[in-house]
Amino acid sequence: MQSNLRTKLIQLFAEADGEFLSGQKISEELGCSRTAVWKHIEELRKAGYELEAVRKIGYKMKKKPDKISENEIRFGLKTEKMGQVIYFKDSVSSTQKIAHELANNGSPEGTIIVADQQTEGRGRMARVWHSPAGNGIWMSLILRPAIPVQKTPQLTLLAAVAIVQAIEEQTGISPEIKWPNDILVNGKKTVGILTELQAEADQVHSVITGIGINVNQVASDFPDDLKETATSLRIVSGKKIDRAALIQTILLTFEKRYQDYTRHGFQPIKLLWESYALTLNRRLTARTLNGTFHGKSLGIDDEGVLLLETSEGIKRIYSADIDISS
Amino acid sequence: MQSNLRTKLIQLFAEADGEFLSGQKISEELGCSRTAVWKHIEELRKAGYELEAVRKIGYKMKKKPDKISENEIRFGLKTEKMGQVIYFKDSVSSTQKIAHELANNGSPEGTIIVADQQTEGRGRMARVWHSPAGNGIWMSLILRPAIPVQKTPQLTLLAAVAIVQAIEEQTGISPEIKWPNDILVNGKKTVGILTELQAEADQVHSVITGIGINVNQVASDFPDDLKETATSLRIVSGKKIDRAALIQTILLTFEKRYQDYTRHGFQPIKLLWESYALTLNRRLTARTLNGTFHGKSLGIDDEGVLLLETSEGIKRIYSADIDISS
Repeated sequence: MQSNLRTKLIQLFAEADGEFLSGQKISEELGCSRTAVWKHIEELRKAGYELEAVRKIGYKMKKKPDKISENEIRFGLKTEKMGQVIYFKDSVSSTQKIAHELANNGSPEGTIIVADQQTEGRGRMARVWHSPAGNGIWMSLILRPAIPVQKTPQLTLLAAVAIVQAIEEQTGISPEIKWPNDILVNGKKTVGILTELQAEADQVHSVITGIGINVNQVASDFPDDLKETATSLRIVSGKKIDRAALIQTILLTFEKRYQDYTRHGFQPIKLLWESYALTLNRRLTARTLNGTFHGKSLGIDDEGVLLLETSEGIKRIYSADIDISS
Repeated sequence: MQSNLRTKLIQLFAEADGEFLSGQKISEELGCSRTAVWKHIEELRKAGYELEAVRKIGYKMKKKPDKISENEIRFGLKTEKMGQVIYFKDSVSSTQKIAHELANNGSPEGTIIVADQQTEGRGRMARVWHSPAGNGIWMSLILRPAIPVQKTPQLTLLAAVAIVQAIEEQTGISPEIKWPNDILVNGKKTVGILTELQAEADQVHSVITGIGINVNQVASDFPDDLKETATSLRIVSGKKIDRAALIQTILLTFEKRYQDYTRHGFQPIKLLWESYALTLNRRLTARTLNGTFHGKSLGIDDEGVLLLETSEGIKRIYSADIDISS
């Protein structure tokens, strides 16, 4: 089948939203015979789509294959801006790296770069982020917010809120946020967020929000050094998750929270963040570049800085690795 | 003359620091005859150096040519780190652009890019910065500070303090700082500072400090639209300034203030900045992206944010164009 016909056919099913499409309608839309339609349907089945055929009624798409592609992300996407420009690759070094290049070349706000696999996936502080093929969401999102650099850490917190809400909506799982950039399920790391920026002192040029989600890994998929600390949505929920649909939900919740942020500032995001935060009113150890501090977390301030009540007063923590003591 | 012999000869005179060098010593250091030394000296004269020759005593460098080059900046530079890696070009699009590429490719802290002319010089908010050949200092400095992004605007203020001190030391002129990034002499713009960064939310990868200084322009050198608002160090002092020497002084004062900052934090920089600030305890109009505000400036906070006392309370100004009313 020509790839534009396949694209058109998938789009028709996406627009039908789980309802039946008659063979007649498909043949008209694709401009081909009923017999050709039947052949195209068979090819989609071979590509992993589950399609139901009922005589005199037509065809219904029951399930998309467990793969992501530009089409899978695009069709059914309900956003105005987020994800409206899509770069999809089977394998890349790092989606962040590509996103920086695209941002430098003027790609608009909302552009996403999604890969099935990253060979050099990175987390915070240039740490390795294990990004194997077939099971994860490895995505970078280009933003162009009209904010000063001091406020960019707020966007890590906004992204965390949006992702928690999307996971809740899609899977029923209720994750928790660990300051600054991790999302945990049952205490284990499931999502990492990496916020990078290019800016002047008083004007941000672009923010690149990197999102890594362990979606469909089973326990044996994790390397030994991650087995104790990481989990996936599939391990927790006991079922495979549709990655393309989760990307769509994330883009939509992100867009909603980003609109809140643009219109009403950080306050509504902060309240939501605190409602999902694991690190509120808990005794913590914060390991920073300038030393290790123990104390009780009082929350975050308007710039996303963690406020830690220590024996020597309130300490402002800009960057740290956090251990929760109680 | 071979360029390495010329470099060696200039270095010898720089090390002699204005004292006489005997022809014998020069011939030994260069490994050439006394006659050859005399020829090399003649070539330096043709290149614009003023050299005094006294029989039986030797040669003394009285004045370097009014040009900047890698050698002019390097010899006599007393820093440990700032300017120890130098990229000099006669003409570039923008030193900031080159500095970003060098920073991405791992250039160390202290690397400078200096050009005699910029064809696409930029100021804050992508505004044009007029950067003609022969008269200005157009320079970018790569820094790799261990600070969170919220604190990067402090480095604009640090750079302003260092440049004011260097200009005072070199020329006797006492400039004033206008928040956030301009240095004025007699109320006219003389220096602009552009701080750009590449960062994660909680870790700066590199800060590129762009410095543009109007040094030796005469009034007629400025385009009509700048005549009222801009001036040069030469116009104010009535004499030509040695640009390479000024660059050396800036690098040294910058290094000292940067060491203060690394060891003792922003407080010592803040106190110095306030002592040079034009915008303290004055009635201002601040034009921001979110509206125009009138009030009295109370100073800056620990993140370099301008605090403006308005009729509706204290407003935190992250980015603005400032007009001083009184």
